[in-house]
Amino acid sequence: MAAGSPEINPDLARERRRATFDPEQLTCFLYGGPEAVRRKRYLENVVKQDPVLQNEQRWAFQSRQERVETGLRKHMYLDKLQADLGIADIKEREHLRAAAAGHEGYALGLHYGMIIPTIKNQASEEQQRKWLPMAESLRMIATYVQTELGHGTFIRGLETTATYDPQTEEFIVNTPTLSATKYWPGGLGKTVNHCVLMAQLYTQGKNRGIHMFLVQLRDMDTHMPLPGIEVGDIGPKFGFDEMDNGYLRIHNVRIPRENMLMKYSKVHKDGTYQKPPSDKLAYGSMVLLRCSITSMSAKCLAEACVISIRYSVVRRQTEISPGGEEAQILDYQTQQYQLFPLLAASFAMRFAGDFISNFYKEKYPEIARGNFDFLPQLHAMSAGLKAFSSWVSSAGVETCRLCCGGHGYSHASGLPKIYVDCTPACTYEGENMVLMLQVARFLMKEYTNMMRGKPLSSLIQFLACDITKKSCMTDKVALKCLVLAYQHRVTRLVADAAASIQEIVRKGKSQQEAWNSCSVQLFWAARAFCHAFVVENFVETVSEKHFDDKTREVMTSLCQLYGVHGIITNLGEFIQDGFFTADQVQILNNRLMFLLREIRPNAVGLVDAFDFPDSALQSCLGRYDGQVYQALYDYAKNSPLNEKEVLDSYYKYIKPAQLSNSSKPYSRL
Amino acid sequence: MAAGSPEINPDLARERRRATFDPEQLTCFLYGGPEAVRRKRYLENVVKQDPVLQNEQRWAFQSRQERVETGLRKHMYLDKLQADLGIADIKEREHLRAAAAGHEGYALGLHYGMIIPTIKNQASEEQQRKWLPMAESLRMIATYVQTELGHGTFIRGLETTATYDPQTEEFIVNTPTLSATKYWPGGLGKTVNHCVLMAQLYTQGKNRGIHMFLVQLRDMDTHMPLPGIEVGDIGPKFGFDEMDNGYLRIHNVRIPRENMLMKYSKVHKDGTYQKPPSDKLAYGSMVLLRCSITSMSAKCLAEACVISIRYSVVRRQTEISPGGEEAQILDYQTQQYQLFPLLAASFAMRFAGDFISNFYKEKYPEIARGNFDFLPQLHAMSAGLKAFSSWVSSAGVETCRLCCGGHGYSHASGLPKIYVDCTPACTYEGENMVLMLQVARFLMKEYTNMMRGKPLSSLIQFLACDITKKSCMTDKVALKCLVLAYQHRVTRLVADAAASIQEIVRKGKSQQEAWNSCSVQLFWAARAFCHAFVVENFVETVSEKHFDDKTREVMTSLCQLYGVHGIITNLGEFIQDGFFTADQVQILNNRLMFLLREIRPNAVGLVDAFDFPDSALQSCLGRYDGQVYQALYDYAKNSPLNEKEVLDSYYKYIKPAQLSNSSKPYSRL
Repeated sequence: MAAGSPEINPDLARERRRATFDPEQLTCFLYGGPEAVRRKRYLENVVKQDPVLQNEQRWAFQSRQERVETGLRKHMYLDKLQADLGIADIKEREHLRAAAAGHEGYALGLHYGMIIPTIKNQASEEQQRKWLPMAESLRMIATYVQTELGHGTFIRGLETTATYDPQTEEFIVNTPTLSATKYWPGGLGKTVNHCVLMAQLYTQGKNRGIHMFLVQLRDMDTHMPLPGIEVGDIGPKFGFDEMDNGYLRIHNVRIPRENMLMKYSKVHKDGTYQKPPSDKLAYGSMVLLRCSITSMSAKCLAEACVISIRYSVVRRQTEISPGGEEAQILDYQTQQYQLFPLLAASFAMRFAGDFISNFYKEKYPEIARGNFDFLPQLHAMSAGLKAFSSWVSSAGVETCRLCCGGHGYSHASGLPKIYVDCTPACTYEGENMVLMLQVARFLMKEYTNMMRGKPLSSLIQFLACDITKKSCMTDKVALKCLVLAYQHRVTRLVADAAASIQEIVRKGKSQQEAWNSCSVQLFWAARAFCHAFVVENFVETVSEKHFDDKTREVMTSLCQLYGVHGIITNLGEFIQDGFFTADQVQILNNRLMFLLREIRPNAVGLVDAFDFPDSALQSCLGRYDGQVYQALYDYAKNSPLNEKEVLDSYYKYIKPAQLSNSSKPYSRL
Repeated sequence: MAAGSPEINPDLARERRRATFDPEQLTCFLYGGPEAVRRKRYLENVVKQDPVLQNEQRWAFQSRQERVETGLRKHMYLDKLQADLGIADIKEREHLRAAAAGHEGYALGLHYGMIIPTIKNQASEEQQRKWLPMAESLRMIATYVQTELGHGTFIRGLETTATYDPQTEEFIVNTPTLSATKYWPGGLGKTVNHCVLMAQLYTQGKNRGIHMFLVQLRDMDTHMPLPGIEVGDIGPKFGFDEMDNGYLRIHNVRIPRENMLMKYSKVHKDGTYQKPPSDKLAYGSMVLLRCSITSMSAKCLAEACVISIRYSVVRRQTEISPGGEEAQILDYQTQQYQLFPLLAASFAMRFAGDFISNFYKEKYPEIARGNFDFLPQLHAMSAGLKAFSSWVSSAGVETCRLCCGGHGYSHASGLPKIYVDCTPACTYEGENMVLMLQVARFLMKEYTNMMRGKPLSSLIQFLACDITKKSCMTDKVALKCLVLAYQHRVTRLVADAAASIQEIVRKGKSQQEAWNSCSVQLFWAARAFCHAFVVENFVETVSEKHFDDKTREVMTSLCQLYGVHGIITNLGEFIQDGFFTADQVQILNNRLMFLLREIRPNAVGLVDAFDFPDSALQSCLGRYDGQVYQALYDYAKNSPLNEKEVLDSYYKYIKPAQLSNSSKPYSRL
């Protein structure tokens, strides 16, 4: 934290004195204890003191080409720093990188984060012995190449082929059409010299489905593309400027048989294909990735909340009473109404991310041992939470930005960068709507099982609840009653969707047609399921975890706000079957306004508790010291456009126009 | 349109054959008849054939500095083209510019669009005689300078001062604090040499409120800033890259008395202040600007719909039935559910924009003559529609982008650029939430009048409706019943908000405190009011305007979808008082799904009807010919990062790391 800053904006300082709880306690809870927090701050301080990192120019002032180069330089420097400091812990590495490079991507990120694990998980032991040292020494740098111009989420539709030739014991690899062109993989354009390629395997005249192949793309000395390989950057995007997302066309490139990743499936010398023991073994890394997207989305939303809430106590506008001092904009109920539910959501998502990661850690070893009992739940929950959290965060970050008024639109605010970094999570690793329909499929299966008298999965027991029962809500707004309301909503929506499907099938349509005709309803059910899960998990966290009393009180208000706001925002789905009475709706409405007032004095304390260093936020508006106007002014002064007092374009275009106009009669003064 | 394109994607061609109506009829309706459409296409063709404009590089491939220069060059070239072709009509100018420069801004845009009109409206005749020729010949280039680092929507809070000195007959102009630094005005940074400055006028020791002053900033020959002036670009933003939005600090700069804009207010030589005849005369240009923002927002949403709907029939993914052909993604109900209501909204906003602009044209002359009867309605409606439409469009454009999957994230899609161009409208010319509360104030005033037996304003007669009456909705889903439902919703929300305020006042709080404590409720009421207005206006447009039967049928479905979807999405507000029965809700739900199916075959026809040329959309995904993959591939190949096969950063950072690693034992193969 920015301890030692010369001067804290007095409005912000007063907010910190007003908090009814100790944010430090919450920080320790969030990061796993005081020692972990101490280490985190130590690493952030290393970054702050580092002479090289201190002197980097703002990313926003650089051209794309400069960003690509700076990103690589900075991250490779951090690799070295990390090694020098002996930091092995993944969380500590994240702290270091967040403090030094915020939302600036790393073209080798997939090499370290996905390729090395994939080799470990999917390559045979012999392959690992050969490839891991190459990968770890960066002699081989690779990325994960799956999506094609014409094919994304639906992997079976990929067109790239690897056809086995037993004569030479090689695969012949092709992207046979324009739409088969590989497109999007990070680092593919300019950085990597190899890739792990997803392609349709053909051997002995048959398609054996999608498999992975290690394909060399560039010469390991000159870095020039090899014959048959056309590879390059896909051009500028909304964000991810530092990354050279790439395209790749492959024309009759031969790779040795040993380059197919053969831990599970195999192609023998004669071309005989050996199936993997289970299709399900490929799920692992994707599930884990989706868990981490939930946490990443939560973090983006939390960062945006820190920025917009700190700014909202520094920013003053309009008197609430005529002639009075201009009010801090956080004192407007409408501002609280926009920001506090998002603050609550950022904690809710954070806890959901923690849950699903722990669930994965707990259950995955069993799955790897061949016990697939928990796989459907793990798959559905990780998919659902990834989709739910990335949607909430993506929209939420923009709301935070708009709550900062005009200044939110400047890159000085840091918010646009968070947004463009956060929103692709709605698409990658499974398009959100597609994932939601996978969740719906899980729900329908469970529901059908239940109707047939089979037991429900552990996370979804509530589906057996009596949907004719009305809400227990009283003016205490007990957390328990909130949870039951969300569970009731899912259960009713699941039952409605199932009934709709049945009716359409009864009218003679196929199961597939019926599914598509009801998919909006199914989406509603899946979204409600994720929402219910997040609420329940939030309630359990504040009820069961070891908070001191004051912190628990604040967190309970926040949790209640999350639950109540979600009901009011989706009220139709909660009341169309008469679950709440009109009086209960009134209670919830009143409670919502009450909670906004109650959370107000702790808003800054709550965002401080996230303990993001200024260097990670890169925001003039979200600074710990609240000196926002000075920071905006400094940002402006340093704009590269100000390097010249008069731009060349003045001489080239404006001056000639003035001169030509001055010869016309009307302008003679 | 792209007539003469070599080949239309067969999926898109088939869609065009499927339409049940003639899009050309709708195009003519939208642009005011066949002759106007012919002119529009003629101008678009001029752009297409123009050798200079043809050869411009994509904006996305340029650095910010290049974008600033290109923007200026392109737009000044268009000024000339416009003059050469003798195009005086404002709509025709817009067509020309849209086709040539799409969403690329013009640093002189405010000079032409705001400064020249401001001089005409706010300067005395003598001032006009002096300044207009200077402005028209570009000897004087100015921008409108209002917002400050610390002050936005609340104009009374501005800190910049102009203090009259009768000794020298000059104003002494100052931005006395850091937070008074002028910040954001377009073109201020590098382009203009003058500005129209909003400042607190002080004369004879008294503050006379905000007035306008013409201030020279740069030397008219050298373009260097004058003494006492510090001016520059504010740095990179989310978008508006071509614009040099600027900052300005003024230190004791003296300007002649004659530089105050004195059509209405005056400062005489001795310092005597003369008030304007009415405060309300300053409203005009802002109201007009807000009307045009409604239309602009509608256009952005329409463009995004064109892109995402065309792409959604070209893109195929996943079989609906196993083993079948991959489906066009627009055949998925969830895709229709996301896109068709936005398509409907883009028409709804378009018609709302037309209405409010016509209302302005009709009523403003009366207002200018001093009859202020219509001013409150005009002010409230223009504010409300600006806020409502910019929110809907901003969120809608992002939904369209996400509906294009991964490719939507590339600048190749054109969608990020539309978004960053559209979203600032939520903030500029009045922050949306602030405007919504102004609408609420109007509603409360009308409601109070009504309760006192006074007549309601013309646009708001329905506020007198009986809120105990239930919905007339039957399974025909008559448009009339939809309109009544929206009117019922507003009326109930207005009554609820009024009751809440009264109750708080009764408990002893001030009117101001009560207002703030109820402002979320007030916001709900204002939003519902705008929504009701947009629905009603859409219904009137499809009912009363001269469409042929087939077009009317399609437009009626779209209008019904807009109404039904809005109810389902905000269901709680419609049913919490029992206005709809459960059966009626079921009818609306079924109707929603029915309408998605019904609109499906006309989706492409409807977006074609907007008749946006490819050069305006600048989108690989939204091309008229549907050749999206070839276009994406070409975009990638042209990425500036591909100019070198091996980047310098490879030699600088990767190679050395490889070499240093290769000396370590573990990597020896």
